[in-house]
Amino acid sequence: MKVGFIGLGNMGVGMAANLLKAGHEVTVYNRTASKADPLVKQGAHLASRVADSCFGDVVMTMLSDDQALESVVFGDSGAGSKEDAGILGSLGKGAIHVSLSTISVALSKKLTAAHAERGQRYVSAPVFGRPEAAAAAKLIVIACGADDAVATCMPLFDAMGQKTFRFGTNPADANLVKISGNFLISCVIESLAEAMALIGKAGLDQHQYLDFLTSTLFAAPIYKTYGAIIVDKKFEPAGFAAPLGFKDNRLALAAGQDLQVPLPIASLVYNRFLTLLANGGENLDWSAISRLAAKDAGEGR
Amino acid sequence: MKVGFIGLGNMGVGMAANLLKAGHEVTVYNRTASKADPLVKQGAHLASRVADSCFGDVVMTMLSDDQALESVVFGDSGAGSKEDAGILGSLGKGAIHVSLSTISVALSKKLTAAHAERGQRYVSAPVFGRPEAAAAAKLIVIACGADDAVATCMPLFDAMGQKTFRFGTNPADANLVKISGNFLISCVIESLAEAMALIGKAGLDQHQYLDFLTSTLFAAPIYKTYGAIIVDKKFEPAGFAAPLGFKDNRLALAAGQDLQVPLPIASLVYNRFLTLLANGGENLDWSAISRLAAKDAGEGR
Amino acid sequence: MKVGFIGLGNMGVGMAANLLKAGHEVTVYNRTASKADPLVKQGAHLASRVADSCFGDVVMTMLSDDQALESVVFGDSGAGSKEDAGILGSLGKGAIHVSLSTISVALSKKLTAAHAERGQRYVSAPVFGRPEAAAAAKLIVIACGADDAVATCMPLFDAMGQKTFRFGTNPADANLVKISGNFLISCVIESLAEAMALIGKAGLDQHQYLDFLTSTLFAAPIYKTYGAIIVDKKFEPAGFAAPLGFKDNRLALAAGQDLQVPLPIASLVYNRFLTLLANGGENLDWSAISRLAAKDAGEGR
Amino acid sequence: MKVGFIGLGNMGVGMAANLLKAGHEVTVYNRTASKADPLVKQGAHLASRVADSCFGDVVMTMLSDDQALESVVFGDSGAGSKEDAGILGSLGKGAIHVSLSTISVALSKKLTAAHAERGQRYVSAPVFGRPEAAAAAKLIVIACGADDAVATCMPLFDAMGQKTFRFGTNPADANLVKISGNFLISCVIESLAEAMALIGKAGLDQHQYLDFLTSTLFAAPIYKTYGAIIVDKKFEPAGFAAPLGFKDNRLALAAGQDLQVPLPIASLVYNRFLTLLANGGENLDWSAISRLAAKDAGEGR
Repeated sequence: MKVGFIGLGNMGVGMAANLLKAGHEVTVYNRTASKADPLVKQGAHLASRVADSCFGDVVMTMLSDDQALESVVFGDSGAGSKEDAGILGSLGKGAIHVSLSTISVALSKKLTAAHAERGQRYVSAPVFGRPEAAAAAKLIVIACGADDAVATCMPLFDAMGQKTFRFGTNPADANLVKISGNFLISCVIESLAEAMALIGKAGLDQHQYLDFLTSTLFAAPIYKTYGAIIVDKKFEPAGFAAPLGFKDNRLALAAGQDLQVPLPIASLVYNRFLTLLANGGENLDWSAISRLAAKDAGEGR
Repeated sequence: MKVGFIGLGNMGVGMAANLLKAGHEVTVYNRTASKADPLVKQGAHLASRVADSCFGDVVMTMLSDDQALESVVFGDSGAGSKEDAGILGSLGKGAIHVSLSTISVALSKKLTAAHAERGQRYVSAPVFGRPEAAAAAKLIVIACGADDAVATCMPLFDAMGQKTFRFGTNPADANLVKISGNFLISCVIESLAEAMALIGKAGLDQHQYLDFLTSTLFAAPIYKTYGAIIVDKKFEPAGFAAPLGFKDNRLALAAGQDLQVPLPIASLVYNRFLTLLANGGENLDWSAISRLAAKDAGEGR
Repeated sequence: MKVGFIGLGNMGVGMAANLLKAGHEVTVYNRTASKADPLVKQGAHLASRVADSCFGDVVMTMLSDDQALESVVFGDSGAGSKEDAGILGSLGKGAIHVSLSTISVALSKKLTAAHAERGQRYVSAPVFGRPEAAAAAKLIVIACGADDAVATCMPLFDAMGQKTFRFGTNPADANLVKISGNFLISCVIESLAEAMALIGKAGLDQHQYLDFLTSTLFAAPIYKTYGAIIVDKKFEPAGFAAPLGFKDNRLALAAGQDLQVPLPIASLVYNRFLTLLANGGENLDWSAISRLAAKDAGEGR
Repeated sequence: MKVGFIGLGNMGVGMAANLLKAGHEVTVYNRTASKADPLVKQGAHLASRVADSCFGDVVMTMLSDDQALESVVFGDSGAGSKEDAGILGSLGKGAIHVSLSTISVALSKKLTAAHAERGQRYVSAPVFGRPEAAAAAKLIVIACGADDAVATCMPLFDAMGQKTFRFGTNPADANLVKISGNFLISCVIESLAEAMALIGKAGLDQHQYLDFLTSTLFAAPIYKTYGAIIVDKKFEPAGFAAPLGFKDNRLALAAGQDLQVPLPIASLVYNRFLTLLANGGENLDWSAISRLAAKDAGEGR
């Protein structure tokens, strides 16, 4: 398939590479073009503006937040050229925009309407997994959209991920699943942080405790991944930086606000992120909020 | 082995039965003697007072809280007979008291000292698992105590559980592992409750969402068990009743207070339990605190 | 002075009336023109569009939120006429826009810049007080802006309030004072709610308890006003409706987010508002969040 | 009147002095006898054991916590003499024990029953005010007990305080009023801490902001007293030390637990105290929990 791919950050670069490996013809665009170099060596075409990545069957976007995606879709892409009309103004009738980013439910609804008005199709397909999983094609994809559109995209999802879950035809639902999933991960981080602060201050071995947890009741990938990071305090380099984690926390709170659903743990985690960022943690992995429970308990004073 | 077993509640009755099945000679004691009937049919001896269950190599206790265990150990067992000196006054020198109950770190320290003074041995071995797991010999045992004492008890643990974890020789450490483990479970319940309130109010299918979670990032037994109870609202009959869950929550807070470790999610869950109990939930499973997130979101009004 | 006054809600109608009483020439504008009737009887001129209230020395705005103020300032006023350029396009050079509304720090900064660019002056002067205080000219005014501009407006503030406090020349600072003041009021409401739930469930007389509090350590207007509402459960008619209280709570959280200052009580109150609104409280006074502490404690079940 | 006075801490020493000034015959007892020296110079008798302070019409106790009061009442007073039977074993029939301490509702109920059984009378009369107020006879007294007993004590309360409030004849009610009052003070401290963190980080003058608050909506003694301490960071010497503030916070939580009333702000303050104590704050005034909001916001890093 002819695929455009916009957004070559930590995650996007691995995802685009896997599309190439699967034999698709990929045209990449990134605001900082140099990020595309390794992909070009692997056979990707380089678009110098958003519009030039939108001529195929599908264009995929993997951007950091609502604002970045809006500017690329609606045309204020920062590319500097007046004639860059954004995805909305460039994509052909019937072609598909696949949004892989973790964005708000509200923006997903707005994009659904905007693309429909232009006769374009919109699939929301946010992914779970850190950069290692993106590189290894081990992502989990949540895909929502019209059945035919999602079916068309399945080979692309298969190239990037280990499994694709579908939650119906309403694109914004995929975003809510992603947002609430990240909320649950943040709960795991905070709860492990508190338990480890207790176990650690009592003098027990945190690694042994983690081994116990993850070989029994909490034998889930997410406890293994984050448990190890938390116990080893490996917050650099950041697989998923604190400002992005904070953004996702706010997306959960925003979804809760729109639906009038209080999320007290999300509020607690919100304050953890503010504390982390106010104290110099902007370059750390988002799981560095786990340090705050330990510091409150007097560790390292 | 000759084993005494004190405390035939939801959990204890299954555990004692598995000791019998494994061929041990078991003498059971329960305040309400009729609870022992099925075990007697399976070959158990029935003790009419605490002391009469303490003549063997090991006496095991599986009671609901600190107070119940203290009265059985120190002799105010409610059996009404003056001559009942409790475990402490009845157990032979070198014999082992295995405490399986979820009790406070503080009481475990007190028992360690009290038994040592009498030349008795004390092993702390709290278990993870609900009544079904107790009946099926699928419990997870956390055992702490002197190496020789724990080694002596291993056949008993093997008869009751699927795996035994050891965390050193300090009995109270096993209790902290158990308490913090239950704290982590309560975090899973509360976080799933909040996520499900969001997903449900948005109109997505909660079962499908749970399937997704538990087949990917959250593929752990605890998410499967409690996720199903929460989504199906199956809080009766209570596998682990709300007042017991509240007790364990307070044990976590007490451990945090003693060690000066703030546990904000435990505080949040504390208020959930108070709300549940103040509104008539004392006979429900502890996971019924999950209804509160849904009610706050307006469900059922 | 010739004064325009835009926004004739619960608060604005009393404030404009007091300007008239003090002898100022007042031209009022309101989206729903009928609200102006009583003021016209008292001598006010009626403007049929925003621009027609902007010809004097000063135009004052008293609107419900950021969005309402932005539409009036920037010209999408809902008045339906293309030629309505908003305050920004209508106000004369050197004339003053006095914003009395409780708006965000961010919008106040934006207005400061926008008016400066046009050679207009901007004073931020949010007020404390409920509709009764507005009618009785007992408001407390927080005024920030250039010294000469604030000095020009002092007769207007004196006509509307009992006292004007100045916090320097940066308009947005007045908004932060207002927002943090309302945050402190929300803390009083929530803390009284919790204390009253305790006192009430214990069977003590809540009125007597309130009398004690407000005649000693808590002898402040805010405890008297809200204490009485809470104890008497007088949430209708709403002096300050729950959606507006929620808006102010979010303004505090937004200010905290911008400045990276966690505000845990504001987070708690945020969830109270969500719960109140999700359960049908949108027409109640914002202090009705106090019912939630009582309900959690089992009152009325 | 002949009055015994037990407990010469920061508060008790001023209270006993005011009884002397009012002409009462006062016999003082304190575990560390040297604390009594200044009072002896002012005319007090010195008792060398608890019993020797219990021969008059009234014995007053002003101790730090439940445990200290229990040991003095029930006879394990630490005085070292076997014959010291405590207040309960020493006080005459019809004589009155006035408990001025901030103790639990549960202990107050226990003392009510124990004294009644001995034919003694019990009045619960906890006080509001810091050591300066105790020295200046400006305390506020909450008195509950049988009408005649309270009437007998009124001259004593008048000598120590500015005003006495009565809440009926059930002694434990006075303790709940005191406990909930201190809870409300802790809410003032925490809310001011959060507001000041915001105001301070924005660069506004905290003193000016406090002046505004306390001259308008928050014109209450408690805001003035604690506002000044918080803004000036004057936490030493401690007028009311953090461990005592923490004790009172736990008394509020305990009362809430007994009555099944969730108190979320008390839970938040609980974690603040744990954090303060875990980080070396045990000698600071309890209002030093206000530093934590500022530190979370990055102050001083």
